[in-house]
Amino acid sequence: MPTTDVAPLAASLPEGMVVTDPDILEGYRQDRAQDPDAGTPLALVRPLTTEQVQTTVRWCAANGVRIVTRGAGTSLSGGATAVDGAIMLSTEKMREISIDTSTRTAVSQPGRFNFEVKEAAKANGLWYPPDPSSFEICTIGGNVATNAGGLCCVKYGVTTDYVLGLEVVLADGRAVRLGGKQLKDSAGLPLTKLFVGSEGLLGIVTEVTLRLIPAQSAASTVVGSFASVREASEAVLEITGKIRPAMLEFMDKVSINAVEDMLHMDLDRNAGALLVAQSDAPGPAAAAEVAFIEEAFARHGASEVFSTADPAEGEAFTAARRAAIPAVERLGSLLLEDVGVPIVALPDLIDKVAAIAADEQVMISVIAHAGDGNTHPLIVFNPADADETRRAHSAFGRVMDAAIELGGTITGEHGVGRLKKAWLPDQVGPDVMQMTAAIKKALDPDGLLNPGVLL
Amino acid sequence: MPTTDVAPLAASLPEGMVVTDPDILEGYRQDRAQDPDAGTPLALVRPLTTEQVQTTVRWCAANGVRIVTRGAGTSLSGGATAVDGAIMLSTEKMREISIDTSTRTAVSQPGRFNFEVKEAAKANGLWYPPDPSSFEICTIGGNVATNAGGLCCVKYGVTTDYVLGLEVVLADGRAVRLGGKQLKDSAGLPLTKLFVGSEGLLGIVTEVTLRLIPAQSAASTVVGSFASVREASEAVLEITGKIRPAMLEFMDKVSINAVEDMLHMDLDRNAGALLVAQSDAPGPAAAAEVAFIEEAFARHGASEVFSTADPAEGEAFTAARRAAIPAVERLGSLLLEDVGVPIVALPDLIDKVAAIAADEQVMISVIAHAGDGNTHPLIVFNPADADETRRAHSAFGRVMDAAIELGGTITGEHGVGRLKKAWLPDQVGPDVMQMTAAIKKALDPDGLLNPGVLL
Ligand SMILES: Cc1cc2nc3c(=O)[nH]c(=O)nc-3n(C[C@H](O)[C@H](O)[C@H](O)COP(=O)(O)OP(=O)(O)OC[C@H]3O[C@@H](n4cnc5c(N)ncnc54)[C@H](O)[C@@H]3O)c2cc1C
Ligand SMILES: Cc1cc2nc3c(=O)[nH]c(=O)nc-3n(C[C@H](O)[C@H](O)[C@H](O)COP(=O)(O)OP(=O)(O)OC[C@H]3O[C@@H](n4cnc5c(N)ncnc54)[C@H](O)[C@@H]3O)c2cc1C
Repeated sequence: MPTTDVAPLAASLPEGMVVTDPDILEGYRQDRAQDPDAGTPLALVRPLTTEQVQTTVRWCAANGVRIVTRGAGTSLSGGATAVDGAIMLSTEKMREISIDTSTRTAVSQPGRFNFEVKEAAKANGLWYPPDPSSFEICTIGGNVATNAGGLCCVKYGVTTDYVLGLEVVLADGRAVRLGGKQLKDSAGLPLTKLFVGSEGLLGIVTEVTLRLIPAQSAASTVVGSFASVREASEAVLEITGKIRPAMLEFMDKVSINAVEDMLHMDLDRNAGALLVAQSDAPGPAAAAEVAFIEEAFARHGASEVFSTADPAEGEAFTAARRAAIPAVERLGSLLLEDVGVPIVALPDLIDKVAAIAADEQVMISVIAHAGDGNTHPLIVFNPADADETRRAHSAFGRVMDAAIELGGTITGEHGVGRLKKAWLPDQVGPDVMQMTAAIKKALDPDGLLNPGVLL
Repeated sequence: MPTTDVAPLAASLPEGMVVTDPDILEGYRQDRAQDPDAGTPLALVRPLTTEQVQTTVRWCAANGVRIVTRGAGTSLSGGATAVDGAIMLSTEKMREISIDTSTRTAVSQPGRFNFEVKEAAKANGLWYPPDPSSFEICTIGGNVATNAGGLCCVKYGVTTDYVLGLEVVLADGRAVRLGGKQLKDSAGLPLTKLFVGSEGLLGIVTEVTLRLIPAQSAASTVVGSFASVREASEAVLEITGKIRPAMLEFMDKVSINAVEDMLHMDLDRNAGALLVAQSDAPGPAAAAEVAFIEEAFARHGASEVFSTADPAEGEAFTAARRAAIPAVERLGSLLLEDVGVPIVALPDLIDKVAAIAADEQVMISVIAHAGDGNTHPLIVFNPADADETRRAHSAFGRVMDAAIELGGTITGEHGVGRLKKAWLPDQVGPDVMQMTAAIKKALDPDGLLNPGVLL
C-alpha cells in the first residue's frame, strides 16, 4: 500500500512547498476537461528547482506514490486531472527563463506561460512561433508534454519543431539532459523527440531549450464569409495546394455567432462559415499571396472578403478565432474534440460531424486549424439533461470514429490524456499499443508517472 | 548457436531473393565508411515487399540470426557495415513510389533514391526539401534511419520534419503503421519521431509517408571568398542572426583547391574560405536578402563577392560544395567527421580543429553546413603510412572531444553507426545510454537488428 503520510516529504523540502490544505487541493483536482470523476491529490507540491522535483520523485518512488504533473491545467483531454492518493506536482513556480541571442535559443523552466516565452524572444528581436489559442494561460512545459499546436503551425510547425533540448526527471528521480543548443544532432536515439508529446508519461520536463527564429514580416490578414462550410473547406484545399499561408483558420455559424455575442465586432452572423487567413511573406510577396487568397475565396463563393495589412486589425480577427472556445462554452457544457484528417478529407469530416449532430440531436460547433486538417468540433450540452448528456457523449465517440474512418487522428494537438484513451487502440491498433506499453515500462517500470493517461 | 543454413529461408522467398554467392556478398561488406574490419554476411536478401521483409525477420528471429539493414550503403559512420553471420537485408529493390497531390504527400518504399523522391514531387509541382549531398546515391529509407540533413535544412529542416508516417517491421516480424497522411497527430507516444534517426536499431522501415510542400521561388546565390576561416564564420553568425537563408555552406582552402582540381570552375584558389549562400525569398524580397548577405560578406572582409539570380549558375556553386567530399577523397583516405556546435561556437570549433591538425601533423579539410553549426572536418591520411594513420585516428577522436567540450555533438547528421559509438557516452552520459539500452531492449529484446550500431 502506498503511504498517505507526506510529512517526511514535506520535511525534506522548503517549508510550505508541500500543501495538504483541502481548500487549495480542491483547485487542483480538475483541468479544463472538467472531468466530474477527478480524484483528490494526496498533496500538492510546488517545486522551484530540478533538485526539488527529484526529491519529490525519489520519495514517491520509494513509497509507491504516483505523481500527476500539472502545468497550468488547461488540458482539454484530462491529462492534468488529479488521481486519488497521487501527488499533484505543479510546475507553476518554476519560472526561470533566459534568452541567448548568440545561439538564438531560449532556456526556460517549465512553468513559464507560452506568451511569456514569446515576449522574452520578442524583446530580443526573435520569435517563438508555436501559438496555441490558450497561449496566455498555458505553460511551455505543458506545451512540450502535449506537443501543442496552434494557429501558425500551418506554416511554422508545432512545438516539437522548436525543442532542441530538454532536462527531464525520470521516474526513478534521475535528471537527464537530452539534446542541447546545437541546431542539428543525430547522436543516439532521438530521445528529445520521444519526450515531446509524451504527455508526462515518461518523465517530468524541468527545463526546455527552444529554437527561436528571426522575427518575420508583419502579417496581412484576409477574412472571408462563406454560405456553406463545404465551400469554405474547398477554398482551404485550393489555398494549401498552392501557397503556405501563415494562418488558415475556420469558424462555423454557431461559433461566429457565439463570438459575436461575446465580442461585438460585426462578424457576419448569417455566414455559414468564416475563414481567417494570413500571409507573412516578405515585402511585396505578401500582396501577391493576399490577392491569391482573395481570389480563391471568391472562386469558392465567398460573399464578403475583407483584407488588411494592418497588424492590429488582423489581430482582432485572430483574437476572434481564439475566443471561439470560451464563447461557445457560454452556450453550455462542452465536449471538446480535436480530430484531424489528411487535408483532402476536411470537407468530408465536416459533413460527417454535421450528420452526427443531426442524428444525435446535439449542437456541434466546428472550429478548425483548417490549413492542417485539424478540427475542433465542440459538442454543446446541458449537463442537467441526462439524455442530452448521454447523446453528447455518444456523439463524442462517433466523431472520433469518423476521423479514424477517414484515415485521420482522434487528436491533432490536445493529446489523448484520460478522456480519449478508449479510442486510441482503434486508431493505432494493438501492436502500437503494445510498443507504447513496452516503452513506458522500460522508462517507468512501476507506472508512477501520470497514471491513467494514454494507457 | 545461430544457424548458418539459409536454405529454409531461401525456400520461403522467391527464387534468387536470397544470395550467397561470395563475389556478390563481397560488394555488400562495406559502406562508405570503408571499415577495414567489416564482416561477411551469412547471406544477402533483397526483398520486394513488406511481407518478404517480415518473412526474413521472422526466420532470423526464430533462428537467432541477426540482421543488418542496408539502403545504398553511403553511410559515413559504418551503419551499414556487414556483420559476420548476420543477414544483410538490402532495400534496393523496394522502389514503389506514389505522389498524392490532394494531401501533398509522397508514399515511398525505402529503396528509392532521395533524388527520385524529389523528382516525383517536382513532376507534381511539389517539393521534398531534404537534400543530403549524397542525394543522387542514397535511399529515402537510409535518410529516415539516419535523419539525414543537407544543404537546405538551415531553412527547411531535416528528414524528421517531413516524415508524417512510417511502416516498420519490428524485430519479431510484426509490421506496424505509425502516423499517416494527417499533418498533425498527437495520438499516443510520438513513435514516428522515435524511429526517424534510430539507425535501424528498432525496426526496418518498409514504407515512408512524406510531407511535401509547394515549390518555392527559384533561389538566388551569393558566393564570397574570405581571407580566413574566422572571418567567414563570423559572417555566418551575422547572417543567421538576421535572416533565414535557404542555404549557407562553407568550404576551406584545402577543399576549394581539391574541388577546383576536379571541376575547373575558376574558384579562388588563394581564398582561406568560401561561403555559398542562397535566398529563395519570394519576389523582390530575394534581392533584399541577397543585398544583406553581400553586405555581411563585405563587412567581414570578403575579397570577392559574386551573386546571381540565375538558378543554373547558382547550382554550379552548390554542386561544387557537394563535390567537396569526393574531391578531398582524391588526396588520400578520409576519416569523415560530422561534428556540430551551437552556432555561436562555430569559429571556436574551426580554430580547435586547426590546432588539432597542427598538433597531430595531419591534413584536416573543413567543409560545413555552416548555417546550422554542423561541420565536416575531413581528416586526410595515407593508410600505407602506419604512423600517419595512427595520428589521423587520434585526431578523429580529438575533434569529437572538442565538439563535446564546446557543448556540441559528435554527429549532426551522419549518425553514430559503428564508427563513433565509443564517443557517444562522453556526449550524452551514462543515464542516457541506459535509457537508450532500455528502449532497445523493449523493442528488440534479443538484439537482432543492426548489432554493433550505437550500443
Ligand atoms: C481555450 C483553450 C484553447 C486551447 N487551444 C489550443 C490550441 O490551439 N492548440 C493546442 O495544442 N492546445 C490548445 N489548448 C489545450 C492546452 O492549452 C494545451 O494542451 C497546453 O499545451 C496545456 O498546457 P498546460 O500548461 O495547461 O498543461 P496542463 O493542462 O497542466 O497539462 C497538460 C499535460 O501535460 C502534462 N505536463 C504538464 N507539464 C508537464 C511537465 N513539465 N512535464 C511533464 N508533463 C507535463 C500534464 O501531466 C498533462 O498530461 C487549449 C486550451 C484551452 C482551454
Ligand atoms: C559524398 C557523400 C555526401 C554525404 N552528404 C550527406 C549530407 O549532406 N547529409 C547527410 O545527412 N548525410 C550525408 N551523407 C551520408 C549518407 O548519404 C546518409 O547517411 C544517408 O542517409 C544514408 O543513406 P543510404 O541509403 O546510403 O543508407 P545506408 O548507408 O545503407 O544505411 C545507413 C544507416 O541506415 C540504416 N538503414 C538503411 N535503410 C534502412 C531501412 N529501410 N530501415 C531501417 N534502417 C535502415 C542502416 O542500417 C544504416 O545504419 C553523405 C555520404 C556521402 C558518401
